Amino acid sequence: MVRAAILGATGYTALEVIKLLLRNPEVQVTAATTRQEGSPSIASIHQSLTGRLDLKCEDLSPQQIAERADYAFCCLPHGASTAVIPQLLDAGVKVVDLSADYRLDDAAVYREWYGQEHGDPARLGKVVYGLPELFGDRIPGQNLIANPGCYTSTAILALAPLLVRKLVEPTGIIVDAKSGVSGAGRAPKQNFLYCEVNESLSAYGVGKHRHQPEIEQILSTASGQSVDVIFTPHLIPMDRGILATIYAKPTSTATDKELLATMREFYAGKPFIRVVDHLPATKDVSGTNFVHITVRRTKGYLTLVAVLDNLIKGASGVAVQNFNLMAGFPETTGLL
Amino acid sequence: MVRAAILGATGYTALEVIKLLLRNPEVQVTAATTRQEGSPSIASIHQSLTGRLDLKCEDLSPQQIAERADYAFCCLPHGASTAVIPQLLDAGVKVVDLSADYRLDDAAVYREWYGQEHGDPARLGKVVYGLPELFGDRIPGQNLIANPGCYTSTAILALAPLLVRKLVEPTGIIVDAKSGVSGAGRAPKQNFLYCEVNESLSAYGVGKHRHQPEIEQILSTASGQSVDVIFTPHLIPMDRGILATIYAKPTSTATDKELLATMREFYAGKPFIRVVDHLPATKDVSGTNFVHITVRRTKGYLTLVAVLDNLIKGASGVAVQNFNLMAGFPETTGLL
Amino acid sequence: MVRAAILGATGYTALEVIKLLLRNPEVQVTAATTRQEGSPSIASIHQSLTGRLDLKCEDLSPQQIAERADYAFCCLPHGASTAVIPQLLDAGVKVVDLSADYRLDDAAVYREWYGQEHGDPARLGKVVYGLPELFGDRIPGQNLIANPGCYTSTAILALAPLLVRKLVEPTGIIVDAKSGVSGAGRAPKQNFLYCEVNESLSAYGVGKHRHQPEIEQILSTASGQSVDVIFTPHLIPMDRGILATIYAKPTSTATDKELLATMREFYAGKPFIRVVDHLPATKDVSGTNFVHITVRRTKGYLTLVAVLDNLIKGASGVAVQNFNLMAGFPETTGLL
Amino acid sequence: MVRAAILGATGYTALEVIKLLLRNPEVQVTAATTRQEGSPSIASIHQSLTGRLDLKCEDLSPQQIAERADYAFCCLPHGASTAVIPQLLDAGVKVVDLSADYRLDDAAVYREWYGQEHGDPARLGKVVYGLPELFGDRIPGQNLIANPGCYTSTAILALAPLLVRKLVEPTGIIVDAKSGVSGAGRAPKQNFLYCEVNESLSAYGVGKHRHQPEIEQILSTASGQSVDVIFTPHLIPMDRGILATIYAKPTSTATDKELLATMREFYAGKPFIRVVDHLPATKDVSGTNFVHITVRRTKGYLTLVAVLDNLIKGASGVAVQNFNLMAGFPETTGLL
Repeated sequence: MVRAAILGATGYTALEVIKLLLRNPEVQVTAATTRQEGSPSIASIHQSLTGRLDLKCEDLSPQQIAERADYAFCCLPHGASTAVIPQLLDAGVKVVDLSADYRLDDAAVYREWYGQEHGDPARLGKVVYGLPELFGDRIPGQNLIANPGCYTSTAILALAPLLVRKLVEPTGIIVDAKSGVSGAGRAPKQNFLYCEVNESLSAYGVGKHRHQPEIEQILSTASGQSVDVIFTPHLIPMDRGILATIYAKPTSTATDKELLATMREFYAGKPFIRVVDHLPATKDVSGTNFVHITVRRTKGYLTLVAVLDNLIKGASGVAVQNFNLMAGFPETTGLL
Repeated sequence: MVRAAILGATGYTALEVIKLLLRNPEVQVTAATTRQEGSPSIASIHQSLTGRLDLKCEDLSPQQIAERADYAFCCLPHGASTAVIPQLLDAGVKVVDLSADYRLDDAAVYREWYGQEHGDPARLGKVVYGLPELFGDRIPGQNLIANPGCYTSTAILALAPLLVRKLVEPTGIIVDAKSGVSGAGRAPKQNFLYCEVNESLSAYGVGKHRHQPEIEQILSTASGQSVDVIFTPHLIPMDRGILATIYAKPTSTATDKELLATMREFYAGKPFIRVVDHLPATKDVSGTNFVHITVRRTKGYLTLVAVLDNLIKGASGVAVQNFNLMAGFPETTGLL
Repeated sequence: MVRAAILGATGYTALEVIKLLLRNPEVQVTAATTRQEGSPSIASIHQSLTGRLDLKCEDLSPQQIAERADYAFCCLPHGASTAVIPQLLDAGVKVVDLSADYRLDDAAVYREWYGQEHGDPARLGKVVYGLPELFGDRIPGQNLIANPGCYTSTAILALAPLLVRKLVEPTGIIVDAKSGVSGAGRAPKQNFLYCEVNESLSAYGVGKHRHQPEIEQILSTASGQSVDVIFTPHLIPMDRGILATIYAKPTSTATDKELLATMREFYAGKPFIRVVDHLPATKDVSGTNFVHITVRRTKGYLTLVAVLDNLIKGASGVAVQNFNLMAGFPETTGLL
Repeated sequence: MVRAAILGATGYTALEVIKLLLRNPEVQVTAATTRQEGSPSIASIHQSLTGRLDLKCEDLSPQQIAERADYAFCCLPHGASTAVIPQLLDAGVKVVDLSADYRLDDAAVYREWYGQEHGDPARLGKVVYGLPELFGDRIPGQNLIANPGCYTSTAILALAPLLVRKLVEPTGIIVDAKSGVSGAGRAPKQNFLYCEVNESLSAYGVGKHRHQPEIEQILSTASGQSVDVIFTPHLIPMDRGILATIYAKPTSTATDKELLATMREFYAGKPFIRVVDHLPATKDVSGTNFVHITVRRTKGYLTLVAVLDNLIKGASGVAVQNFNLMAGFPETTGLL
């Protein structure tokens, strides 16, 4: 039995990791951390865990975590991750980091987009980016995986086949993405009160969202060319789900059918990717680790549509998928 | 032109008062208060007012308010109202108080349910309760009106005809009420984040909600007997609307048709009350000052259903209705 | 490997049964029926099953079903179930009937509330009501189980401990229940369009809902006394979840703590029931087979609050739970 | 007092027209039509009109309409409008047509996108397109106005200033638009059931939506050049509101500030257009006739964001605005 710790256990992604691990017969959740005082029970923080997991959330040191767990799912905010992960690794704990801290290769880019110095720059560029459909063969044996962002996974998984096969131009790509509200986290902010978000719709971070450089870096790496995107996120009045509508210029006269075939061939054997003929809805993949993708020629552009569940395939599900690969379990364990 | 000030201008009820007054040709909103620093424009606090009202929200003293306004709509929290209203009245400003501070007649009851001493106990018992359908003839000429609570208005308006006409027993009444989330206000609390409330439903304050003694006091006064209710509020995933399902024991064998006729006769000439044959939905009255009520015999009980918009007829609409009566305007001005 | 057929595969409960069975390693879904022409694939009807279940929905005879399946989950409307279930049983197929057809013991009561003659009256009164927490010991070995209604399970599970232990009076009980919209099914009706239901709230079927006699029958059976309830259902703008607020008169002075202890003792060893101290929300059990229940003394009544997921514990989850018991699998297989 | 008829009174846009006209002191709604049998009261079709408008919905001939009304708001589906409007005009009734029938100038384009022959081709190209901010000076005196589409108004109002001032390239423009569900109408279709739409998000009509040629035609006319757009609509789980995110290539190095100034100058004196510095949300304009627009430079594109209420400024509000201009009332009558 593998023992897992959840760091920063009070948020939504932590809750989803726990729920997924409860279905995983090979794993036991043995520790959960929080800075809240009084070591509250996990069920008092997440009522849905009542009677399902008997565990206290404690303010544990890396050494204490190492005594209790073999793996840590780090659900801390960016910046806080680098303050604890190096010590965990030194103590022999393997880590899936759900924060953004180890995703970018370049400390200067991190500084520009995150507004702070990186806390562990020596590791940057050496950590595998945990998108198993692209980098799955490098994940087994790693002791630290940078779990991808939710928007980034959606955009990258849609674009990768066509960029790698050179079927679209690598520049001038527009990613118009829409997300449910759980992506904003559980901290009490007026912007995310029910009555602010419900029955409303808005764009945010136009031209300034941190997932833009992440999308560009990974797609450039994956396709061996400099990829440039415009990224616009939107807030949708629903709990969960991301849909990305992507506009890219085709380099060929390939038909929809041919493009879909290329994408299917690219993802052959990948258990969570479905290239579909119809236009997918986020509800089709809600609560699952699946991604549905399609493409249409529309005058001078290809229009791609991809959907996933931001909390599962966009965060906690892919974290468990990465963990499965690191630990040598079948990739889909606990995820179907 | 009557000049109106809005005290505590950053919340949802303040916004609704302003929007309703913008439709009132006899009124100009001339002041808005907040404790926020920097005197932000009202449009920066409520983006929906952009280009519609050019006004700063300032930290004004009662004297400054009196220089700018004839009437004040007090949207402050309970406790804060009594700290400013006496001075406003002394300075000649007439006040509609949307807080709970002047609703209860008894300082001891206030202390018990609100957990603090009342700030202006000398006035308790002398302030008219601003439910125009019951107490409208007493409102003209008043300089202070206690605007009713949202749940209380719903329950009282449904029950008053049958209690006054002695068609139901005054004790053992059950008020099972359901409200949209805007009733919880705009302060950033985790409980009211979108992802906590959306796709969920809960009861709260079971047996402990402050509207219970208010309902009992007003119905006792209105019907001349001691009325006793059990009140259970619920939080519904929608912005606005209250529905109360009320169970009371009939004292006669009156049929549904006869009961409805009694209720219609009771509310004859009241422009905002509709006694309907069908089962009403909150959407039927959303965004309006109307109340829809019906009744059914169900075995040993009468089941009453009443709906209103908690922000309009439950708060800001009735406030403007009270203001209209105080100021001598037609009751419906700006409200149809 | 047990083979299961899904009858009436196009609705929401059918989809949930399928999703739950996909997690059950002992079962294979081998047939799905519909009257739609053209034998559409199950994935074209439920896009969320794309790539997860490769099966056609066909218009199969009972004999054809019997050739392909050992068990049938019957998700047909009431009335349609009795037209096919007797033949399935004759052909050796075991059946979990999610319709209301075999729940009531009395053909006359069925006629009164369902407005039609019962199609298989000889079996009435002999079919086990599939609420495993009350009748679980009778389920193994049955070849037909009447799966309970969603509202009824909520009300019964909350009230049973106190009625069986004679801690509340059996008459004058009020069940004020609130349900998400999925309970209304997937047939295209104007009443259930998004823009009719969203941001609205209504009571329906006041005094006339078919779950009232079902609640009364089962609670009377379970507690050995004639139980009488007033039942009011409400439609809540959310996909799934039922919350019942129940008012009953106590027969003792037992405290909240004592009442909760009695309920916990009553449900000891039941894996899906959680008696909780806090007021539960439907979201706490959404997507699960759990039920959360609590109780409070409120003046002359006990107020009970119970929540479950109407599609899971209220329909498809309990169906799988019943199936597990019928087939000899652990009760929780595929349900945790 | 002007008399107005509502043709096709059972839908959402008809309801909104009626509600807006109830606030217009110069107008009386004197007729409402439907094909439903039995001449139902308007309040039985729209419960929110209970006690507010006493009128039957009847199957009236054009001649009968002409006897009762001076103006007709035609809320019929496309195709049905041309079957009745010519006769209404002949009978002296002035018409605001909310359908698409008179928006396109070219019968061949109509045939291509609407899949049927146009019913009144002789009038095509002669009917003023009722977007008052662009064509307001041509509306007074007209007897027929083609009321614009909801998506089209959003896109056109955002793009017109920059296209007319030649600040963006007229081709390769991407309009990624998102709409609340009320745009889909009130006919009972499975796709628009609450449980299909809620907690979900999808693109539809990719490359095939009928508003694409309408946007292109009007923007080409307004800016005197051939404008070409890619248009992708999305369905958002909310009642009302449209947000369009638009990507266009700048032709100059104008800054955000300069672009906003140009847009403000373009719309100077237009009472319903607000060019804002912040990123607007649909809730900012919900229930109003306002449009909020902004623009940002984002690498090689300008990103425009515009919001309006699809039922008001996108349909019924602009219809009343057009009516006001036709009838010689102030443009804003009943709309503030």
